[in-house]
Amino acid sequence: MQTYTPPLRDMAFVLTELHDFSQLTALEAFSEVDADLAATVLEEGGKFTSEVLLPLNATGDKEGCTIENGVVRTPRGFKEAYRQFCEGGWSAVSAPPEFGGQGLPETIGLMISEMICATNLSFGLYPGLTGGATVALRKYGSDELKSFYLPKMISGEWSGSMCLTEAHCGTDLGLLRTRAVPQEDGSYRVSGSKIFISAGEHDLSDNIVHLVLARLPDAPPGIKGISLFLVPKFLPDENGAPGERNGVLCTGIEHKMGIKASATCQLAFDDAKGWLIGAPHKGMQAMFAMMNTERLGVGIQGLGIAETAYQSAVAYAKERLQGRSLAGAKHPELPADPIIVHPDVRRMLMTMRVNAEGCRALGAWVAMQLDISEHAADERQRRDAEDFVALMTPVVKAMFTDLGFESANLAVQTYGGHGYIVDHGVEQYVRDARIAMIYEGTNGVQALDLVGRKLPAHMGRNLRGFFHPIAAFIAENKENPMLGEMITGLERALGALQLSTAQIAERGMRDPEEAGAAATDYLRLMGLVGLAYLWAKAVVIAVPKSFAPGPDQAFYAAKISSARFFYERVLPESAALYLKIKSGKASMMALPDEAF
Amino acid sequence: MQTYTPPLRDMAFVLTELHDFSQLTALEAFSEVDADLAATVLEEGGKFTSEVLLPLNATGDKEGCTIENGVVRTPRGFKEAYRQFCEGGWSAVSAPPEFGGQGLPETIGLMISEMICATNLSFGLYPGLTGGATVALRKYGSDELKSFYLPKMISGEWSGSMCLTEAHCGTDLGLLRTRAVPQEDGSYRVSGSKIFISAGEHDLSDNIVHLVLARLPDAPPGIKGISLFLVPKFLPDENGAPGERNGVLCTGIEHKMGIKASATCQLAFDDAKGWLIGAPHKGMQAMFAMMNTERLGVGIQGLGIAETAYQSAVAYAKERLQGRSLAGAKHPELPADPIIVHPDVRRMLMTMRVNAEGCRALGAWVAMQLDISEHAADERQRRDAEDFVALMTPVVKAMFTDLGFESANLAVQTYGGHGYIVDHGVEQYVRDARIAMIYEGTNGVQALDLVGRKLPAHMGRNLRGFFHPIAAFIAENKENPMLGEMITGLERALGALQLSTAQIAERGMRDPEEAGAAATDYLRLMGLVGLAYLWAKAVVIAVPKSFAPGPDQAFYAAKISSARFFYERVLPESAALYLKIKSGKASMMALPDEAF
Repeated sequence: MQTYTPPLRDMAFVLTELHDFSQLTALEAFSEVDADLAATVLEEGGKFTSEVLLPLNATGDKEGCTIENGVVRTPRGFKEAYRQFCEGGWSAVSAPPEFGGQGLPETIGLMISEMICATNLSFGLYPGLTGGATVALRKYGSDELKSFYLPKMISGEWSGSMCLTEAHCGTDLGLLRTRAVPQEDGSYRVSGSKIFISAGEHDLSDNIVHLVLARLPDAPPGIKGISLFLVPKFLPDENGAPGERNGVLCTGIEHKMGIKASATCQLAFDDAKGWLIGAPHKGMQAMFAMMNTERLGVGIQGLGIAETAYQSAVAYAKERLQGRSLAGAKHPELPADPIIVHPDVRRMLMTMRVNAEGCRALGAWVAMQLDISEHAADERQRRDAEDFVALMTPVVKAMFTDLGFESANLAVQTYGGHGYIVDHGVEQYVRDARIAMIYEGTNGVQALDLVGRKLPAHMGRNLRGFFHPIAAFIAENKENPMLGEMITGLERALGALQLSTAQIAERGMRDPEEAGAAATDYLRLMGLVGLAYLWAKAVVIAVPKSFAPGPDQAFYAAKISSARFFYERVLPESAALYLKIKSGKASMMALPDEAF
Repeated sequence: MQTYTPPLRDMAFVLTELHDFSQLTALEAFSEVDADLAATVLEEGGKFTSEVLLPLNATGDKEGCTIENGVVRTPRGFKEAYRQFCEGGWSAVSAPPEFGGQGLPETIGLMISEMICATNLSFGLYPGLTGGATVALRKYGSDELKSFYLPKMISGEWSGSMCLTEAHCGTDLGLLRTRAVPQEDGSYRVSGSKIFISAGEHDLSDNIVHLVLARLPDAPPGIKGISLFLVPKFLPDENGAPGERNGVLCTGIEHKMGIKASATCQLAFDDAKGWLIGAPHKGMQAMFAMMNTERLGVGIQGLGIAETAYQSAVAYAKERLQGRSLAGAKHPELPADPIIVHPDVRRMLMTMRVNAEGCRALGAWVAMQLDISEHAADERQRRDAEDFVALMTPVVKAMFTDLGFESANLAVQTYGGHGYIVDHGVEQYVRDARIAMIYEGTNGVQALDLVGRKLPAHMGRNLRGFFHPIAAFIAENKENPMLGEMITGLERALGALQLSTAQIAERGMRDPEEAGAAATDYLRLMGLVGLAYLWAKAVVIAVPKSFAPGPDQAFYAAKISSARFFYERVLPESAALYLKIKSGKASMMALPDEAF
């Protein structure tokens, strides 16, 4: 069954032991934040998500969204849950106080997101899209638009959507055809068709604020001729209440593999009134602002599913009686042993466990740098943090969603035949998790972003923030007996990554297809090195604490065991990745098109 | 879209070039078979499956099966397709002539199965279950039962089912509770509840012959007290026509992730009349006879999905325009290049391609040995072949289904967002393929079967038939310039497998959990070595032929490119597997149950 207990202890470990939470509380923006406040917010978030959102996850999947005459209805209970969500302030956790937000660090906000995605990914998309839209609006909107729209969006009263994709263009937005014509009053009339618009139409909020990519009449062709517009579903009246219906209509919703309670809409814009966000033809810039936040958020979706899949599998593995331990019956009083005794079941559970804990640790590292990049007083510190976030965003997006999907599948496998039956709820995780590898840029596009854009940017400067702390950690801990062979494993993996980086830089300069051929494996290798570093760091923290008797002793002991499992059973993949990268593009590109 | 062209050229290559088809035609049972006949049967099979079964695949998924008052209806078109299937003789391809079968080699039968699974996995389960049931009946049934039931089952007039699982026991059949009470007339009365019974009830055939595991009153507890019974849905009258309804009722069908057009039934047996198959308490023996055939068949399901997923992805990749080649526009006349130009898309397509071609080659190797094990005149030859099949069955079942699922997911990924939409038909492959990793023994159970039963059997004799030809090939081709570095790769992978085998033998003797901890990775390593051997063999065959101008030149050139891709981009995984196996059970088993 779908089961979820908020992983509060591990979140606290990640925030205040593994990473340096005081880096955040030292920032002026978070001067009123401390670890206790963070713990309280997370505890309350855990309650809300497990008590309100989790019970709607399977029913929402079963019922799905419906459309009738352009009106989209979410499944039973979603509207009430959304009301509670907004009332509880969950839409505003990390939003800026000047627009009604609670001003907490994004690091906390993303942990709340993890819980939302773990308990109800479909539900999470509605506020998730609003969040992305507010980021773009905050960064590029005029003061007027901001003061008018942001407070309502941050309170959740109004929601948001991001209208990029058209039937013939997803990854390649340069092909898009939606048009915007300037009006005398300074507004625009937007016309065109969009598809795959998550939260594009629904019954949760009083109004929907669409951010729409379109071309101005004088736009240059391709990606450099795209502008961003704000197009509300209802045009607000003078008092800011939703007034006249705007020319945007939902013409259909998609029938999808999963996230069935999330409305994926086809939208027709027909002379819809809108306002420009940012400069003309500079829409992609604003789009990327919100896409980066969204990409981190999608990575966190993978983490959320990984956690809940793990918990659901553990519950079943402890309860399902089947066969006997290979080491002799563990529960002779029972007709059979619970399947958790079997090594291969352990293999699956431990893999899921390290997927979730590892991604949580890495996600928080990136989230903290995101907060620093936005709030540090020192410009250089802001820039370094920004470099790091830029580098790691594709890694978080792609690796976390891959691992989330892996974990969902391992949960099904742990359940055996029962996992394939809809009633048990775990196959839903597979179907839901699958989309995260695709949207906001497929994982292949993330990999290309990493090797094609993020590595070469600023002459490779981005990489420093990643390589440096790891190399320093290795130097410091070379002889640390707590780590044993782990430090060699970390050093070897980092070495493989550095060699691969050099290869991509060198060959990719001559031939961009060489970089493209290495991209996916390189991204994973980098992610594994990041995870390996954090697991080693966790061991150094956990070992001394594991000797102290007390309620946390088992927690630290488990952390050490999990780290060892990661090093012995996951990190070896870096050896294969290195060899694959090294082989270059030749065998990948050899077959002529017609031979396929 | 779901797309399928029967891979006849590759099938012919595998049958008559890669493997030695004359090994089969030299057997008396197949003295009338030749390559031309095989090609004709496969061509006709390809027509039937792509013209009749493929069009029902997506509609069957959408409609699913329904149940009303114990009556199960298959989706529209299935009944008519099944009639054509039987009329065309497709139910009888490899069945023995003495019961009306066509007596073709199982090697051909499994290639037909591949096509059926590629075009309509749900449909394939109905005759697939009949096939398994006839195997058990042929091997262990009385002459009376055989002459009465087999002809009707082989013609497809009556279908079969295998009733093993109960709600509380799947893998651990020792726990099963269904009872059989002997009657004075030599028959039995069977009572109990079964779940997850594929093809347990439906409207395709006039009668259903259930093979049911149950306990006799004097049965010893556990696995050694299980007997096998034949329980028909309708009790045949003297003329062999379906007569009185027997005491078996379908009480429900499962709502599943996929294979929705395959009825997965809950069956209630209530004093149902049945007949013993084989000796009392020896039901598991008969069960395994059919399970081994079924397990190979399930492996082939993975292969079928891998092939059709590949083809569907290729079609889309050639047609979808998005972005430009990293090497400069390939089709400047178009608004964008087709996505097949992108290295990362190639990576996915090539992986799918080598998954399908590699599994086809390996599957045929095992299938040929299966035919030899049943039909060779020489006992020693039969025994050696049987050893080989026993060893490779879990590898085929588990690795092929894992790779089939991987390919299905890569197809979705190639489609991007469109792959997630039901209408495009590729997400169905993911949902359908997922079950094959679970049923007929989860892939974890296969791995345990391999290391726990198949490796140690006969003092490791089984392994010889696998290691010997590979070692001989390496010795012969050490300096073969056609293979270049491939031969080193093969040698290294075989070395890793041999070291891993020795480790499992040594550590596993002391501690069976050590074997259990290595099992899944070992199975994959063995599978990869098998694939690597066959790819190298394919290269040695293809290189000289690739110089000869003609219609097949491109085929051989593609074979060589694909082999190289396998060696450079897939086989490196063996390095990681070896390291994982080497690490042993410690980190896998360290966490106490309560820490999960």
